[in-house]
Parts: sequence; structure tokens; C-alpha cells
Amino acid sequence: MALVVQKFGGTSLGDADRFRVIADHVSRTRRRGNDVVVVVSAMGKTTDDLVRLAAEVSAVQPARELDMLLSAGERVSMSLLVMALAGLGVDAVSYTGSQAGIITDTTHQKARIIEVKGDRLRESLAAGRVPVVAGFQGVSIDRDVTTLGRGGSDTTAVALAVALKADACEIYTDVSGVFSADPRIVPEARRLARLSFEEMLDIAASGGRVLALRSVEFARNHHVPLHVRSSFTWEPGTWVAEEDPSMEQPIVTAVTHDVSEAKVTVTGVPDRPGIAARLFRALADRTVNVDMIVQNMSLRGTTDISFTVPMVDLAASMEVANALAPEIGASEVLADDGIAKVSLVGAGMRTHPGVSATMFESLSDAGINIEMISTSPIRVSCVVRADRVEEAVQVIYRAFDLSAP
Amino acid sequence: MALVVQKFGGTSLGDADRFRVIADHVSRTRRRGNDVVVVVSAMGKTTDDLVRLAAEVSAVQPARELDMLLSAGERVSMSLLVMALAGLGVDAVSYTGSQAGIITDTTHQKARIIEVKGDRLRESLAAGRVPVVAGFQGVSIDRDVTTLGRGGSDTTAVALAVALKADACEIYTDVSGVFSADPRIVPEARRLARLSFEEMLDIAASGGRVLALRSVEFARNHHVPLHVRSSFTWEPGTWVAEEDPSMEQPIVTAVTHDVSEAKVTVTGVPDRPGIAARLFRALADRTVNVDMIVQNMSLRGTTDISFTVPMVDLAASMEVANALAPEIGASEVLADDGIAKVSLVGAGMRTHPGVSATMFESLSDAGINIEMISTSPIRVSCVVRADRVEEAVQVIYRAFDLSAP
Repeated sequence: MALVVQKFGGTSLGDADRFRVIADHVSRTRRRGNDVVVVVSAMGKTTDDLVRLAAEVSAVQPARELDMLLSAGERVSMSLLVMALAGLGVDAVSYTGSQAGIITDTTHQKARIIEVKGDRLRESLAAGRVPVVAGFQGVSIDRDVTTLGRGGSDTTAVALAVALKADACEIYTDVSGVFSADPRIVPEARRLARLSFEEMLDIAASGGRVLALRSVEFARNHHVPLHVRSSFTWEPGTWVAEEDPSMEQPIVTAVTHDVSEAKVTVTGVPDRPGIAARLFRALADRTVNVDMIVQNMSLRGTTDISFTVPMVDLAASMEVANALAPEIGASEVLADDGIAKVSLVGAGMRTHPGVSATMFESLSDAGINIEMISTSPIRVSCVVRADRVEEAVQVIYRAFDLSAP
Repeated sequence: MALVVQKFGGTSLGDADRFRVIADHVSRTRRRGNDVVVVVSAMGKTTDDLVRLAAEVSAVQPARELDMLLSAGERVSMSLLVMALAGLGVDAVSYTGSQAGIITDTTHQKARIIEVKGDRLRESLAAGRVPVVAGFQGVSIDRDVTTLGRGGSDTTAVALAVALKADACEIYTDVSGVFSADPRIVPEARRLARLSFEEMLDIAASGGRVLALRSVEFARNHHVPLHVRSSFTWEPGTWVAEEDPSMEQPIVTAVTHDVSEAKVTVTGVPDRPGIAARLFRALADRTVNVDMIVQNMSLRGTTDISFTVPMVDLAASMEVANALAPEIGASEVLADDGIAKVSLVGAGMRTHPGVSATMFESLSDAGINIEMISTSPIRVSCVVRADRVEEAVQVIYRAFDLSAP
């Protein structure tokens, strides 16, 4: 008998009918002899609606209260799913993040999990029941409700899989897996049957929206295989697991893109040690997630530092950079929200030189200018103008012939 | 410096604008030198919407899950109100029933408060903050979320006023107080400036919807004066407090009516001791709130027992009665959902005979048949056909000339 964690996102729980469909699937999984722990997100657009309502009420939104507000959505989902299961004769019981024992730090809106107690979940399982847990939320060591940030429900699912020593963690969503590129942009893109954690990390980090970075990191660190699949078609999706050393790695796995970031450039910075450290420490203190950082060659003793941040953090980043500018002797701070990032990911890149060159050439042939470049052992990312990014994905995809089997 | 508990119901929190209006009122109360604890209900029709959604999802609705579902609404309200207060520069913080330390028994949907700890509320007040507490909900001794039943947010407000030794408990609603009859039916009905707890109890028990019975009981037992008033006009409303022995009591205070009950009749019951006890114990075990009970004279050794229950409990009541019928030798169980109750309430009735007779005569003169009668020391209630109840209220109101000052 296996223990499976099944996570259902907001699109999987769009209306009353969907709750019955999901309950039926959970019930079938049980009948096949598995124990199941379910993790749910808020229904459909609930979270967006709550955010909009809060904006209507007040411009001042203490983070603690925003967490309290947003955590309401999962409570609705989880109790409705238990009712749907009860309607099928499946004995289930709902648990909030707090009741499930998901203990976090006190960083509201982006809390990190410190510990998963899970006592009540183990009791439920032992009693033959299906625990249904609110994703995205926990309780802080100060006894306040916290939320885990974007993709938080995936993180909840993985954390529970680790704590309960589950055999698999299934992430159900509205797409049928991870693709070699966004099928809306590259119609011939294909579903990837298997990815290593490292590839999935780089795909998530570079704009692949199927899984959030943190949940993949968590799964890799704790060796929990993930199965990303569709709750609409139920067909097998993409397995994300340890790299299989016996297999030859494909050189390039996927082309991803991301239009959710903006670029900040700090110009005329004196080329002295410690300047970058102060800037990025100050950004970290505001919990801004800086993605790419590029510093150009020093000219006449000054340098320009450019970095990308999520669009939502742009205002905070500009505040931080502007406040520091006089102190670090920078001449100017510029914001640019018209950028996009295109990336190429593949575990085989490590041993195949020349991949970057092919990528740059394909962009150049299409007349697309590269504004920033950053690389990891298995990824190359380029910042381009946002209005050229779809074309960039297409030319790179075709340059590497990614649809070939 | 006084401590005031202010409770705002769902109609007071209908949209984003209303949150700002309420926040402004709380802020003014503070500026006048008072400490304030706020209790909120779910916004507008939120609770009804959630109940409807649950019905769409499943016919089987475990009470524990229904409580989890319905408790989400107050969380949304309280965090939005804290944001609105923060927008006005008022330092506030939200607390769920659990965080406020409202400990209940395990009777889901109708939980009773066992204890109010309130430690975090006292800490907040000591730090100069405004605690905003979710009404209607608590946490059971089994660590599950519970709800307090109809009017539960009023009960929360009174319980907090008691625990925190508040000087007053203000119940804000969409009407400007308690009236001598429903103004929609009797246009000349007037607002009552002051009522005794006993009168308010009988008004609440007989269909006056402004305050729920339990919260009035709680306030009376703990000597907390209530001020029922409008959050739309802010004018002084109705004070509910201890009876003032120095004043002459009006004979009759109000005419109330209630169309939310149904009648069950068990016919041909053998006239033996213990039969009624078994029936009403079985109903109590299902937590059906039986209101009126009438048993007629014994004819040929059998009797009929009629009782009224809330419409929502009719199905459960019929189940209980039908299951018991063979055992207690009853011949038939009949349900009637076409009834209504009209009542006359007044503390002065105790010392003025003849009030019931005048009431019955006024109904008889209008050709309205009385199906059941029950009385308390300060109330007379009659069950009539639902389609005659408005007329019944009008003829009784005029018979007692209740608009006279």
C-alpha cells in the first residue's frame, strides 16, 4: 500500500462539478489500494478577487492581514472537497495549515516552512480517513497565519510528502505536464515524460509556470519524485525526479520564457569592493527576489549594475536603489518594465560546448537584440525586448530542432 | 476611559465603501477616549453564498466541514476592516475565534462557548491597538473550528464584553433599534428606547430578528447592557438592560411575528406517562430547537401532540417522529409548513390580567383562526395560518394602541 499526496490547484477546483470530479479521482486512487493525502488551493480566481477587494478597501495592507485574508480561500476549497468525498462515501476530514502542523517563520506573504508536525494527519490516515489540507498556508512561531508565496500550495504538497514519507507527490493542474516550450507559441512543442530536478529548477526559474521554484527545490532536497499532470485529461504527465545517470542526457530539453520581470540599472557606480554587496543586501532585506545580475566592464573607474526582479517587486527595488544611490555614489537609477527573458535548459549542456553560441546566433539572425545574458551549468538566459520574446522562443526552438524525438 | 465592544453585522459590511465607513466610526470612538474591541460578521450574503455552493457540491455535508467552510467569511471581513483602519492610521490587528481564545464545546453548527481566554486581545489593548475579532466562530476542545449558530456574532460580542469587562456592547445593524412591531407591516410602529432583558428575550424568542436569543441570554446572565443601533444612521437605538424597578412597566411593549417555523403533529398517541419525554428527548438529541408544544385533552385514551420547530429542522424532526411512531403507538405524523406565529410581549403583563383575552378577541374579530397558544409570564403567542399573519400583527397592534406614547 502506497501513500500518495495529491495536490489540486485553483483551475482544478473551478466550480461545484469540478469538486465532484476531483473527489471521484481521489476515491478511485483509494480503491486502487493507496492511502491519499489531498492538498488544495483556493477555487479558481478566489485569491485574485480577494486581492482586488483589499485594494478597494485600503491602500494600506499590513502583510499579516493580507495573509489572514488570502488564507480564507483554501478553507472554502478544503471543506467543499471533504463534502464531495463524503457524498461518495469516502471518510475525509479537512485541516488548515495550522491544524496540519505546518510551522513557518514570521515572514508574512513569503513564509518559509520550519517544521511539519503532521500529527493530526497521521492520526487521520491511521483511522482510514483522507486528510484534505489547505495549501499555501501555515502558522508562524508567533501563532499568526502565514502564506507561503507564489506556488505555495505545491510547496505544501511536497512538504507533506516529505513529512509523511509519501511514495509520490502528484501535482494536478490544467496542463498535461511540462512542455519543451509554451505550446501557445510553439505549436509543435511536446510534453516531456521525464525531467531531472535540476532541469525542472532551471525551467521553473526561467519562466516555466507549471511548478514553482521553491516546491521543486524542496522536492529535490528531500528526494520526493513529483508527477505533474492534468486533472482534466488524467493522462500520465511529466515525472520530475533524480537524474538517471545510466541515460544519455538530451543536450537541450526546453525553451522557456518569462515576461513577469523588470530590469533595474544603477549607472556610474564607483568600481570599489563592497558596493554590489550593499545594494543586494538591502534588496534582500526587503525580500526582493533578484534574478539575473549583470555588471559590465569597468570604464574610467565606474561601472553599471543591471538586475532583474519580479514586476511586483519593481517599486520596492527602485526605492531601495534610489535610497542607496547617493551613499554608493551612483549617478542614476533606471527602471525598465519592457523586457522579457528567453532561456534554454538542458542537463546535457554541461558536456556540450557551443550551445550558447547557437542560441545567440539564432537570435541575431532574427534581428533580436540581447540586452543581458546569464548562464548556469544547464541553462542560458537572454533578456530581450518583451515584444520580441515570442519570436525569440520560436527561432531558438527551431534552431535546436526540439520536436525531434 | 471606557472599553466598548462594537459588533458589525453582514449588512453593515456590504462592500468596500462600508468597510471605510465602519473604520471611520471605530476611529472616532477611539478619539473620544475609548478603547474598542470590534467583532465582525461575514460580508453581506457571503454565508448564504457558501451554503448554496456547498449544496451544489454535495448533499452530504459533515457538520465539522460546514463549520470550517462558513468560518471563512469572517476571516475575510476582519482582515479587510484592519486594512481600512490601517488606512486611517489606526493600529489594529485581526484575530480568529481560535486566536481570540473562544473555546467551545464540540457541537458543530450550534457550539456553546465554554471559556473566553482573550489573552491576545488584552495584549493588543495594552499595546494601544484595536483587536478585530471574527464573530460566529470558536475552536472546540478537540481543536476543531466551530460556529455558534444563528446570531453567533452577537454572542461573540457579548462573550467578549463579559470576558474583557467592557462597559458597553454595541450591536450595529441595518435597523435603528427594536420596534414595537415590524414597520413594514405596521407603519406606525415606533422604536423602543429601552427594554428589559426579559422583554428582549421574549421578543427574540417570538420572531424579533434584531438580536438572537442566545446573545440576549448571555448578556442578561452576565449583566452586560446592549445597545442595538444602526450603522447607517448612527442615531441612538434601543438599550437592552436590567429592568428598572423604579419605573412603571408598560403593559404591552411589542407585537412580534415569526414565519420561520413549521408545525409537526403526532396523532393518536396513547395517553401514558413517558411518551412526550421520549419524543422530545429524541428531538433534543438531534439538537432540534423545539419552540411551542401543545398537547390536547385526552379522548378515549389517546392524545395529539403538536410542536413547532425551525423550518430548517423540519426534515430531521419528521425523521425522529416517524422513527418513534411505531414504538410509542402513534397513528400518524403530520407536517405543516404553512403556519406563522404572532406574539405579544410586555413586562407589565405579569400584573395585568386580561391581556390574552383582548389579543384572542382581536384575532377572532378579524376572522383569524388560532391553531396553537402558548404563554410565558410576559408573552402570549398564537399560531395562525401564514397567509394571515401580517393582518394578525396589525389587528393586535391596534387593539393595544401601541403607538400611543
